[in-house]
Amino acid sequence: MSLTVCQNTDDNNNNNSNQGQMNEPAEGGDVTIYRLCAPIASLDCMEEFSGNTGLDLRRSVSLGSKASLKNVSSTPGECKVKSSIVNYTQFVTVLKGLRYKNIGKSGLRVSNVALGTWSVFSTGISEDQAEAIIKLAYESGINLFDLSDLHSGPRAEVEMGNILKKMNWKRMTYVVTVKIYWSSKGEERGLSRKHIIESVRASLKRLQLDYIDIVIIHRADSMCPMEEIVRAMNYVIDKGWVMYWGSSKWSTTEIMEAYTNCREFNCVTPIMEQSEYHMFCRERAELYLPEMYNKIGVGLMAWGPLGMYLTENSERLFFTKGSLRSKTQNSSWTEDEVAKEDRVDEAKKHLEKVRDLNLLSEKLGCSLTQLSIAWTLKHEPVHCLLISAKTVEQLTQSLQALQLLPRLSVSVMLEIERILDNKPVRPPMISTLQMRGLISHVGPDIVEN
Amino acid sequence: MSLTVCQNTDDNNNNNSNQGQMNEPAEGGDVTIYRLCAPIASLDCMEEFSGNTGLDLRRSVSLGSKASLKNVSSTPGECKVKSSIVNYTQFVTVLKGLRYKNIGKSGLRVSNVALGTWSVFSTGISEDQAEAIIKLAYESGINLFDLSDLHSGPRAEVEMGNILKKMNWKRMTYVVTVKIYWSSKGEERGLSRKHIIESVRASLKRLQLDYIDIVIIHRADSMCPMEEIVRAMNYVIDKGWVMYWGSSKWSTTEIMEAYTNCREFNCVTPIMEQSEYHMFCRERAELYLPEMYNKIGVGLMAWGPLGMYLTENSERLFFTKGSLRSKTQNSSWTEDEVAKEDRVDEAKKHLEKVRDLNLLSEKLGCSLTQLSIAWTLKHEPVHCLLISAKTVEQLTQSLQALQLLPRLSVSVMLEIERILDNKPVRPPMISTLQMRGLISHVGPDIVEN
Amino acid sequence: MSLTVCQNTDDNNNNNSNQGQMNEPAEGGDVTIYRLCAPIASLDCMEEFSGNTGLDLRRSVSLGSKASLKNVSSTPGECKVKSSIVNYTQFVTVLKGLRYKNIGKSGLRVSNVALGTWSVFSTGISEDQAEAIIKLAYESGINLFDLSDLHSGPRAEVEMGNILKKMNWKRMTYVVTVKIYWSSKGEERGLSRKHIIESVRASLKRLQLDYIDIVIIHRADSMCPMEEIVRAMNYVIDKGWVMYWGSSKWSTTEIMEAYTNCREFNCVTPIMEQSEYHMFCRERAELYLPEMYNKIGVGLMAWGPLGMYLTENSERLFFTKGSLRSKTQNSSWTEDEVAKEDRVDEAKKHLEKVRDLNLLSEKLGCSLTQLSIAWTLKHEPVHCLLISAKTVEQLTQSLQALQLLPRLSVSVMLEIERILDNKPVRPPMISTLQMRGLISHVGPDIVEN
Amino acid sequence: MSLTVCQNTDDNNNNNSNQGQMNEPAEGGDVTIYRLCAPIASLDCMEEFSGNTGLDLRRSVSLGSKASLKNVSSTPGECKVKSSIVNYTQFVTVLKGLRYKNIGKSGLRVSNVALGTWSVFSTGISEDQAEAIIKLAYESGINLFDLSDLHSGPRAEVEMGNILKKMNWKRMTYVVTVKIYWSSKGEERGLSRKHIIESVRASLKRLQLDYIDIVIIHRADSMCPMEEIVRAMNYVIDKGWVMYWGSSKWSTTEIMEAYTNCREFNCVTPIMEQSEYHMFCRERAELYLPEMYNKIGVGLMAWGPLGMYLTENSERLFFTKGSLRSKTQNSSWTEDEVAKEDRVDEAKKHLEKVRDLNLLSEKLGCSLTQLSIAWTLKHEPVHCLLISAKTVEQLTQSLQALQLLPRLSVSVMLEIERILDNKPVRPPMISTLQMRGLISHVGPDIVEN
Repeated sequence: MSLTVCQNTDDNNNNNSNQGQMNEPAEGGDVTIYRLCAPIASLDCMEEFSGNTGLDLRRSVSLGSKASLKNVSSTPGECKVKSSIVNYTQFVTVLKGLRYKNIGKSGLRVSNVALGTWSVFSTGISEDQAEAIIKLAYESGINLFDLSDLHSGPRAEVEMGNILKKMNWKRMTYVVTVKIYWSSKGEERGLSRKHIIESVRASLKRLQLDYIDIVIIHRADSMCPMEEIVRAMNYVIDKGWVMYWGSSKWSTTEIMEAYTNCREFNCVTPIMEQSEYHMFCRERAELYLPEMYNKIGVGLMAWGPLGMYLTENSERLFFTKGSLRSKTQNSSWTEDEVAKEDRVDEAKKHLEKVRDLNLLSEKLGCSLTQLSIAWTLKHEPVHCLLISAKTVEQLTQSLQALQLLPRLSVSVMLEIERILDNKPVRPPMISTLQMRGLISHVGPDIVEN
Repeated sequence: MSLTVCQNTDDNNNNNSNQGQMNEPAEGGDVTIYRLCAPIASLDCMEEFSGNTGLDLRRSVSLGSKASLKNVSSTPGECKVKSSIVNYTQFVTVLKGLRYKNIGKSGLRVSNVALGTWSVFSTGISEDQAEAIIKLAYESGINLFDLSDLHSGPRAEVEMGNILKKMNWKRMTYVVTVKIYWSSKGEERGLSRKHIIESVRASLKRLQLDYIDIVIIHRADSMCPMEEIVRAMNYVIDKGWVMYWGSSKWSTTEIMEAYTNCREFNCVTPIMEQSEYHMFCRERAELYLPEMYNKIGVGLMAWGPLGMYLTENSERLFFTKGSLRSKTQNSSWTEDEVAKEDRVDEAKKHLEKVRDLNLLSEKLGCSLTQLSIAWTLKHEPVHCLLISAKTVEQLTQSLQALQLLPRLSVSVMLEIERILDNKPVRPPMISTLQMRGLISHVGPDIVEN
Repeated sequence: MSLTVCQNTDDNNNNNSNQGQMNEPAEGGDVTIYRLCAPIASLDCMEEFSGNTGLDLRRSVSLGSKASLKNVSSTPGECKVKSSIVNYTQFVTVLKGLRYKNIGKSGLRVSNVALGTWSVFSTGISEDQAEAIIKLAYESGINLFDLSDLHSGPRAEVEMGNILKKMNWKRMTYVVTVKIYWSSKGEERGLSRKHIIESVRASLKRLQLDYIDIVIIHRADSMCPMEEIVRAMNYVIDKGWVMYWGSSKWSTTEIMEAYTNCREFNCVTPIMEQSEYHMFCRERAELYLPEMYNKIGVGLMAWGPLGMYLTENSERLFFTKGSLRSKTQNSSWTEDEVAKEDRVDEAKKHLEKVRDLNLLSEKLGCSLTQLSIAWTLKHEPVHCLLISAKTVEQLTQSLQALQLLPRLSVSVMLEIERILDNKPVRPPMISTLQMRGLISHVGPDIVEN
Repeated sequence: MSLTVCQNTDDNNNNNSNQGQMNEPAEGGDVTIYRLCAPIASLDCMEEFSGNTGLDLRRSVSLGSKASLKNVSSTPGECKVKSSIVNYTQFVTVLKGLRYKNIGKSGLRVSNVALGTWSVFSTGISEDQAEAIIKLAYESGINLFDLSDLHSGPRAEVEMGNILKKMNWKRMTYVVTVKIYWSSKGEERGLSRKHIIESVRASLKRLQLDYIDIVIIHRADSMCPMEEIVRAMNYVIDKGWVMYWGSSKWSTTEIMEAYTNCREFNCVTPIMEQSEYHMFCRERAELYLPEMYNKIGVGLMAWGPLGMYLTENSERLFFTKGSLRSKTQNSSWTEDEVAKEDRVDEAKKHLEKVRDLNLLSEKLGCSLTQLSIAWTLKHEPVHCLLISAKTVEQLTQSLQALQLLPRLSVSVMLEIERILDNKPVRPPMISTLQMRGLISHVGPDIVEN
């Protein structure tokens, strides 16, 4: 300590403390004034960190040959029981291209690709397989595990707890997220202080952990006052059972309401919203959630790029078409109004897009799924992308998408945009006067003044 | 998860999250704005949920023959030791007609009929009987047990604890409410932080539970500052010993004062007031408590419809007459002013009403007690109605009142109103100028302007 | 429960809940409005409760013959080892005349006479004796034990803990107060969060109790920010280690500062100040502390009426004269300025007063100490008077002073006032203009306008 | 207690409660008014306390002969394994000259010289040696131990815990400070609620203590919102794991931001900043940190006077030159701009200063290190100076610097100032108008008006 170089000016001090790749280093007073005004920390000082390798992929990573991305067999359905065959010892250090980002405007830094466990603990996957997948993820540098499947929930938590116990990794090296589900039926009669506290206690017990890193409330309950929800979340945080909280499938209005209630009752604010985001589901993540991040620091934990909408099977698409439509928010229809023919038309258009994307990914030397993952990661609002896998091979393939990132140049991205043709735009502002039919009788000159 | 349909518009999202029978589904922005303004959640989005059967009684329940309601012998005094004789296996799923409502503007959803234990643990009822009654209630779908008898208090808590331990029901499937009593004499010298904390600790020990769902303070103590009461309640909630709190026999002014103090000191607000409510005791529940619900979210947990005021024994009524008078709030009398003759007159009038109601209930094919229960449940401010029973048969009978509800048509309700002739009305506003004798010298035209 | 009389009007409800002897029952709305405005509850609704006997001494207690007060030998120095000889079984119910008052504007109701343990655990008193004294106090209805001696502190706490353990009285039947001492030397280097928390933990351990009812901080530390003190007190209360807190030897300015800080940081406010108060030390308790009670609800726990200033030994008085002077607050002197002759004069005057008081107490059939205790209890600001004793006989004698209270008529009190001739008055307001010499040049007419 | 002299006027009370050497005793009302306005307690009432000896060094300590300071061999490098040879029993009571000061505007009073353990637990020092050094420090009256070395961190905490356990000193007699380190790499990915809580838990476990007295966060994390940091610190304090918190290497802007956030979210404010301070590193401690103390009560815990910049080896200085430059804050340079020759020049100048200081210390009969320590202690903003040692002899020598203090007269201090020639001055205010080049066209008369 007595040998340390003196850093006696505040300015030096300030600059030195910003490690990692800061594009716009904070400049003393101005930044701080801004921070004190902004709800939490400002967007400007929230930047990404690359992994232990110290290499910033955007600049320095030398990718293998294009073909290398296809080295590992990419048959997703294939499920080998002996996962130890796969040579994943190549991933003991942080995977090339994996980076660490603060999730929302919190101090929690997680890998930009994280493991969702919905496939890991799904039916037919043995405990050994699940363990191998989780081990691969951890050893690749992934530090967030999302336990959030509605159906395999309890099983996932119990098995995850056993694996964590067996692995004996240091608790500070990983982040576990858990979900609170509720329904109006059965035992969990709606969201309530009682249900939230009981759910968290039950999860802790199943996981055999002292605390959960993030608890995510799946769907808000319009019957439960937001004050009760934020106070209950603050309670479980205050008890030391939970570090952070977030939401899933909440409307932006509900997220804002939660934030407002947190501020009113001096409770800890939520840090993230978990939301679907992929090439064919863009509106929410690209138009509305960035506003949540900028205004109240709620970040986006995305999922979705592995979806079957990438297959070229038109019949299945026919039934899931709802998810593929890119609709403007103000249009209104009900299931019945849409003629069956329209739906068939739409499915056809979608299949054409998928075919074009497949061609593009072949040119890039990767699978369409890999392209889909890389495309999602390219979008700044995504702080953390959840991917899942049923086999070690599947996960390996998905992770190789990270090496695709530098190849997604501006021209490639434009080409994808051209194929998709679904870039979301905010609907034009509609004058409420006009809606009430008042303005039609008035000259436009008056309105404009 | 990867197969889930994308719900990419906030509006869709919002609507989808409202499950159950919502008569007036919330419409996006407007509702939320309202919510942020209202003290807690708005009345509009507080709706009832029917039980697991998914049947909404108001529409779909097909009742048996009218006579069926009288199938079980309706002699309330009768007390069979062998309760196992009664065939209650018919109630393993949620009882037809039982519904779940949020209590107050909280997220806690309880059965609209709940079990008060004052008769269950009263003198002469064996442990086996008590267990059978509680088991029947639970298996019928009742999820709230109110431990609140002043006299059998400690015994009730100890036995209830033993039954819950023995039954081993999942903790999230039931709600236990406990009362805090105090007197100015004896050990509990008034309400105080000390008394509240010591009471809760003692109840927890007797019940062998980790936490109580609702703690109800019986009577406010005008000698104890409201700040001390709300801070103590917040303390026991913060300790994890209690989930919610409420009041019993508090004036609306005291409830408002508690709410104001909670807001001032950032404490958790009370969610309910327990109050007497039946055909002959209507003023408080119909005129004043709905205001508490609308303004500060305090709901009504009612008790009373099983009272002996329904018997046709005039002499007993003579002594309990106080409870039967329907008085306007601004009239003043003392016990001594009322001539004995007046009281006899009143008792006679009451007996006539009871006779008329008995005739009506015979027409409807039910007992007067069943009519009384159904009539109370018909009133919207009642979030939860406590009934008690000394035998399994008695409880079975009372629960059958649920099937009477659809038959209480508007005309039947009007007929009851005609018989009772005690619909409470708010006393006319009295001008304070008039009271001071100033206005009598002034023309009415001036006052009206 | 189903038999309870309906109390369906809020007004009735409100009145019925005020049990005990309420001289001015609260009148609905008005009182509550007042309460919401006042810092805590209003003075008006803070009334005294008599003990279990239900008898209000002021009206109904029939005292024994005057002589009876002197039945028990009144030699304070006498110290019998075998305390079991004394027949204190006569006190198993609440002692005649003992009453229960809320301390400060808190809900905590304590006996108006309480046991200070400074003499009980002083040198030379055996454990058996101490136990006998405490047992007598408890069985007489005294429910507060003040462990606050500076010197026998640790011993007092350890022995008190042992006695309480042995007696096994219900925890809710007594109140234990403990003091936090600090000095600028030794281990307890001033008041600090560290010292407060460590002191409370140490006391709890010594007392073998789960919690202390009131923790009193002896002297404020001008070096320690008040925010740190109130936050630390709030911390120990929040931990469940302490129920209430108070102060001792704090200036009224310091008490106000503590209250202000509590309000600013949403901490629990102190409920009492422990202060000396007796016939020859009146200013603080009669002039300044009532303001604390009225404004911020801090009550007075008094001690002092057993002091040796009642002896007629002039020499000892000479040295303790400081405590006997009745000085107005704005006069300034230092020890050196006061001529020795003046001090001798003053001592003589004091002795004359003591002689006159002795004559009066003989007329009333009691000892001077008993008169002193009764006189103190006559003053409304005293919520709780601490007395101590070295023997069971001494305590018995002191408690008999309670029966003297009804005999202290207005004329007797006036006679005492005449003898004492030290009724404190607030010093006249001094114009700061005048102090600065500005006003002397200005005519009085201007000042008065 | 009954014998205590009555202190019945608030003024007396107030004055009496200020023990120790108060130069300017607080005067009743005025001071308190000031306190309520100032953020925390006012500077005026924050004074130093001398140790148990009751002797104020500034006046009464009679030093031994000048030569005595050099009695113990002053070879810092020398490291004797058998530390028991040194006769440190002479220090069983508080060392002459050691004094106790409140750290920041907190109530925590610590010795003005405290033991930093960075050398104590460095490589090559055996457990026995470490124990002997810590024992000497404790027995000399030092009551603060700073565990803050970046590299030996875990080892230091484990060994310190063992020593404290073995010594069994009363917990209230010492203060332990611990640091939270973080990096953007490795497991502690930045500062976050998760990292703070996990770090504190780990330290508690290693130290085998119930609580840490002060937790110091080393470097702020510009990626972590300040709200998250202050809430996490408040959490660990609220859990009872930590008493106080502070910072190290934070800019004054960051300290202000932390304070602002504490006030906004009602969290406990930090009490200290740990910072380098010695003869050749003065700007921060002399110009900027006193403002932090005056405005928000953050005190200075200094380290540094033992640094190797006091050696006369020019080559090593060449590389550490950065720490020796006294630069004005607004000058900007980068490593590359500074010509190598300039650096050599600077190093030469520095060596001349060191030589002059050596001569002066010889005149004063002490070593240069001792002079350096005494010089630092002379500066009022230093509430606590950390010194470390590899041997008992080294610590003994350093502590003897305390006896040098009275000899550092005004003339000696001026002589040192003359030699150093680096008294920091605030840079002149720069008009932003001028910076923008606007003012150059405007006459100075206008600016001055």
